[in-house]
Amino acid sequence: MKKRIDLLRDNLEFDAYLIPTNDPHFSEEISEYWKCFEWLSELDELVGAFGSIAVTKEKAALWVDPRYHNINEKELESIGIELMKLRVENEPTDVEWIIENLDPGEVCGINGKLYSVNQVKDIEEKLNKKNISLNAEVDILNSIWKDRPNMPKGEIFNHDIKYCGKSSSDKISDIRNEMKNYNAEYYLISALNDIAWVTNLRGSDSNNSPLFYSYLVIGEFETVLFVDNEKIDKDIKEILFEENIKIKEYDDIYSYLKKIKDNKKVLLDPKKTNYLTYNSIGKNANKCEINDITLRLKAKKNEVEIKNFKNCLIKDGIAMVKFLYWLKNSIGKEKITELTVEEKLLNLRKQQPLNRGLSFDTVSAYKEHAAKCHYKANEKNNYELKKEGMLLVDSGGQYLDGTTDITRTIVLGNITDEERRDYTLVLKALIGTANTYFRESIVGANLDIAGRSHLYKYGIEHLKGSCHGIGFYLSVHEFPPAIGLYGVPYSDMEIEENMVMSNEPGVYKEDRHGIRLENMQYVEKHIETEYGKFYKFTQLTMCPFDLEGIDVSLLNDEEKKWVNDYHKQVFETLSPYLDKNEKEWLFKETNKV
Amino acid sequence: MKKRIDLLRDNLEFDAYLIPTNDPHFSEEISEYWKCFEWLSELDELVGAFGSIAVTKEKAALWVDPRYHNINEKELESIGIELMKLRVENEPTDVEWIIENLDPGEVCGINGKLYSVNQVKDIEEKLNKKNISLNAEVDILNSIWKDRPNMPKGEIFNHDIKYCGKSSSDKISDIRNEMKNYNAEYYLISALNDIAWVTNLRGSDSNNSPLFYSYLVIGEFETVLFVDNEKIDKDIKEILFEENIKIKEYDDIYSYLKKIKDNKKVLLDPKKTNYLTYNSIGKNANKCEINDITLRLKAKKNEVEIKNFKNCLIKDGIAMVKFLYWLKNSIGKEKITELTVEEKLLNLRKQQPLNRGLSFDTVSAYKEHAAKCHYKANEKNNYELKKEGMLLVDSGGQYLDGTTDITRTIVLGNITDEERRDYTLVLKALIGTANTYFRESIVGANLDIAGRSHLYKYGIEHLKGSCHGIGFYLSVHEFPPAIGLYGVPYSDMEIEENMVMSNEPGVYKEDRHGIRLENMQYVEKHIETEYGKFYKFTQLTMCPFDLEGIDVSLLNDEEKKWVNDYHKQVFETLSPYLDKNEKEWLFKETNKV
Repeated sequence: MKKRIDLLRDNLEFDAYLIPTNDPHFSEEISEYWKCFEWLSELDELVGAFGSIAVTKEKAALWVDPRYHNINEKELESIGIELMKLRVENEPTDVEWIIENLDPGEVCGINGKLYSVNQVKDIEEKLNKKNISLNAEVDILNSIWKDRPNMPKGEIFNHDIKYCGKSSSDKISDIRNEMKNYNAEYYLISALNDIAWVTNLRGSDSNNSPLFYSYLVIGEFETVLFVDNEKIDKDIKEILFEENIKIKEYDDIYSYLKKIKDNKKVLLDPKKTNYLTYNSIGKNANKCEINDITLRLKAKKNEVEIKNFKNCLIKDGIAMVKFLYWLKNSIGKEKITELTVEEKLLNLRKQQPLNRGLSFDTVSAYKEHAAKCHYKANEKNNYELKKEGMLLVDSGGQYLDGTTDITRTIVLGNITDEERRDYTLVLKALIGTANTYFRESIVGANLDIAGRSHLYKYGIEHLKGSCHGIGFYLSVHEFPPAIGLYGVPYSDMEIEENMVMSNEPGVYKEDRHGIRLENMQYVEKHIETEYGKFYKFTQLTMCPFDLEGIDVSLLNDEEKKWVNDYHKQVFETLSPYLDKNEKEWLFKETNKV
Repeated sequence: MKKRIDLLRDNLEFDAYLIPTNDPHFSEEISEYWKCFEWLSELDELVGAFGSIAVTKEKAALWVDPRYHNINEKELESIGIELMKLRVENEPTDVEWIIENLDPGEVCGINGKLYSVNQVKDIEEKLNKKNISLNAEVDILNSIWKDRPNMPKGEIFNHDIKYCGKSSSDKISDIRNEMKNYNAEYYLISALNDIAWVTNLRGSDSNNSPLFYSYLVIGEFETVLFVDNEKIDKDIKEILFEENIKIKEYDDIYSYLKKIKDNKKVLLDPKKTNYLTYNSIGKNANKCEINDITLRLKAKKNEVEIKNFKNCLIKDGIAMVKFLYWLKNSIGKEKITELTVEEKLLNLRKQQPLNRGLSFDTVSAYKEHAAKCHYKANEKNNYELKKEGMLLVDSGGQYLDGTTDITRTIVLGNITDEERRDYTLVLKALIGTANTYFRESIVGANLDIAGRSHLYKYGIEHLKGSCHGIGFYLSVHEFPPAIGLYGVPYSDMEIEENMVMSNEPGVYKEDRHGIRLENMQYVEKHIETEYGKFYKFTQLTMCPFDLEGIDVSLLNDEEKKWVNDYHKQVFETLSPYLDKNEKEWLFKETNKV
């Protein structure tokens, strides 16, 4: 059988081609239809990878994130692709590789649907320096991928106002008010979670996020949702009619944008808008590049959402405590593996009211597996758990009344002094952030050190951000907010009241151990004085930390108080929902340190 | 007598004129010759103010920083100038005022020597929008200011290598290496402290900083110092000859820059280079705008400078402790005022070896005077001190082996609970920064919250940065480093090993009280691990905090330990240099909390 990479070459009218792991909306999870990278690489090992493939007439290379640097290079070479490593020094990027391998005057093709406006500008600038040109309107995959899956047809449903707290027409009216500040006639939204948020609709096109493929254009006088009409039943049609949202077919976005008249101003986010969509906007329209207006509006949860989040986190906490009770009491008595842990936890979450599955693939990582930040157990690498060492479980659920994300590292038996110290440092870092006070107009980059300094004291760094925003029955990663070092995306945006986010410090020591603790918290008003409005973080997650992991001598008196107060609150909140044995167990687990 | 503002109008060939409080090097302290703003305003009250004056044919207005908002507006109006307030919302800036008051087609003049390249670009862009043009080559003051002081003729002297630790030729060689990264043939330095640092020369043109008016051009093959030749004696000439630095007259800078050939690359800092200098660079030379290379090189103190700083801070601490002993034991027994405090402290510093006066005008502020961040006592407002309330003293000295900056707030008798709480919060903020650990490549904006969060918890904000860099026998304010909130100038630059800086949180409550505590600290290597190099702050200042100001119940156990360890170190370090009474007093003052 002909290699797929050669099929591509047969159809390549230019000198090179680049394939990314994107969909046209830059979603975190992409549908099977858009998994061109995986299909082209032909390698099972690359499922879920993030990277790109570059192909010239003679050569091909594949870039992939560090999680996949130990894949079978020989197998990849046997299909004619060289392995490159993303984010490793001295390795050329895909664009640099294209520049090295093409001559001036030659042409590189991409599918402009899969690159953002910003990305295309960047690539074009780099290529043009060597007089290589870019053609951004080439979709080769469609003609060579014979059994390509269909675009997903997942059901679209209404997210009731008792959960989301605000009607779609009210949200659109807020957005139109902000559009006036720009004197803009149109606002194009391409990000699927923003569209779901504006319309109060949810879909089923992704595994873990309730999203649906669509575009939304909010004009001065009309709002149009571009979506596969087959997904919209009569009830939804009625709701959209009431909210004054028109429906057009998904692919009608191009012709609609083309008709925008001269001198009309169109707002769009160049990081979230794909190049083909951008390019189809009327030639003489005024394209105004901004951060999506919806970013901030969606991030500041309303009072109904906050109330629902609190309730949702109690349910998620019940599932977690039942899970921890089971694990601690069953370990050594029955066969438990990383994969059975995932299953157990999924089942416990499903028993909770309004649950709609997981918000991301569970990380269940035993011993040194936990040192890999995004470890995914499978039949091959699956460890059996014993009465020793630690298990890291990072998991979350989707509920109609919220999205959850929690990590606990669980002590199963003897651990080393270094492991106990590191557990305690991670807890100190979590408390450091949780106990930080700040004022309005402060940005994420200002807050990062509050937690991280506790790790720095012991010479430890983790390359993740400290906190990411979390959607409300939407994506588990939502930005803003972002708390991370200076330069981390979105960490230059203000942290505002009622933003909901994770707080997740960690220690990752390759081939040894990995510890992460993660609570969800929200920004609550603390005090208002002559100096302005001040905020604090209020914990949403209700689940104990493992006392066996804590070296109490490393905690100061304020930190001990924090742990004791938090544990008291966890016990008081959850115990009414637990059976006698679980309750007794939780009582002991929330003993004072 | 004709008002000066009218003299200016008589000589004004254009429609408006702008006068700033700058000198051609954007120095913090400017010489009498450049005090055009003060001269033109005719108001004694404005001595030391920061602002600008705008004049049209009919109107004139004066902008001034908040310290001066309560000056005699009527007196100012009587000479035909309206008072505007800098940094107050809804007040137009000087440029906005010009735009309001001129018609399209009219021309505004400025002296391009007194505006940086960046400032001129900004002003020009704003004016051009209303079709007003800018002429940046107008120096009216020279022709109307008949008794204008001369340019200062202060002596220039050598700063011995035993103090500064590195020869000028070695510094120039480091700079040339960095110039190579830019492929640049020339590097123009305009900032006086950078020139003093490169040449290891010091001058006497400012009151509190040992600087001299000059420009420095480092070329591939020659280094030229542009300076009033009368200031250079035979010895300095010899030293400069040995270090391969040529000397030209101060004003020769323009003709020198004009001769730079086509396509040569000239590096310069557009925030520090005045527009006239910039504009005189050869028309077809390639002007490359960067942060001054010297900023970083100067900021990372060498080992000799660090050693000297430590010794210098011991001497400064001795002076401070002698001062505190005197004050605490004399209050109520002899007449002490804010001004006599200044005098006493100056005399004590002068007694220390290698002292060369003050590094800035002492802030001696009693009771509510301390709520004004930059209060300056004079014969009019001078308070007499009593056995009650608090005195804030912010002061520093120049020594051949360092520059110092310290603030202590001193309890003289009964204070309120609020004052004691605020004192303790400021101390907690200082400890918060002092106890922060961080790693290489972290910037100032990342670190600010470590101290400030303690104030935020109680709804308090101060609008100053938390830490500024400090020169080595140079300016007391030196950037980088800067630790401040996101957006504060230079807070986006990395905090590096051996940077020396202040740590100065404060609380300012108008008409009530002001508390500031300020230590000097430097960045010391803490640990190096698989994750990189980690840093900590090591305290340089040796002077106790006032135990009477501390509410111990607000300190956690780590903070108490910090205070006790620091006080122990202060006692052990300083006591050998104190007399019996002072020693006994210091022993009590450094008791455990």
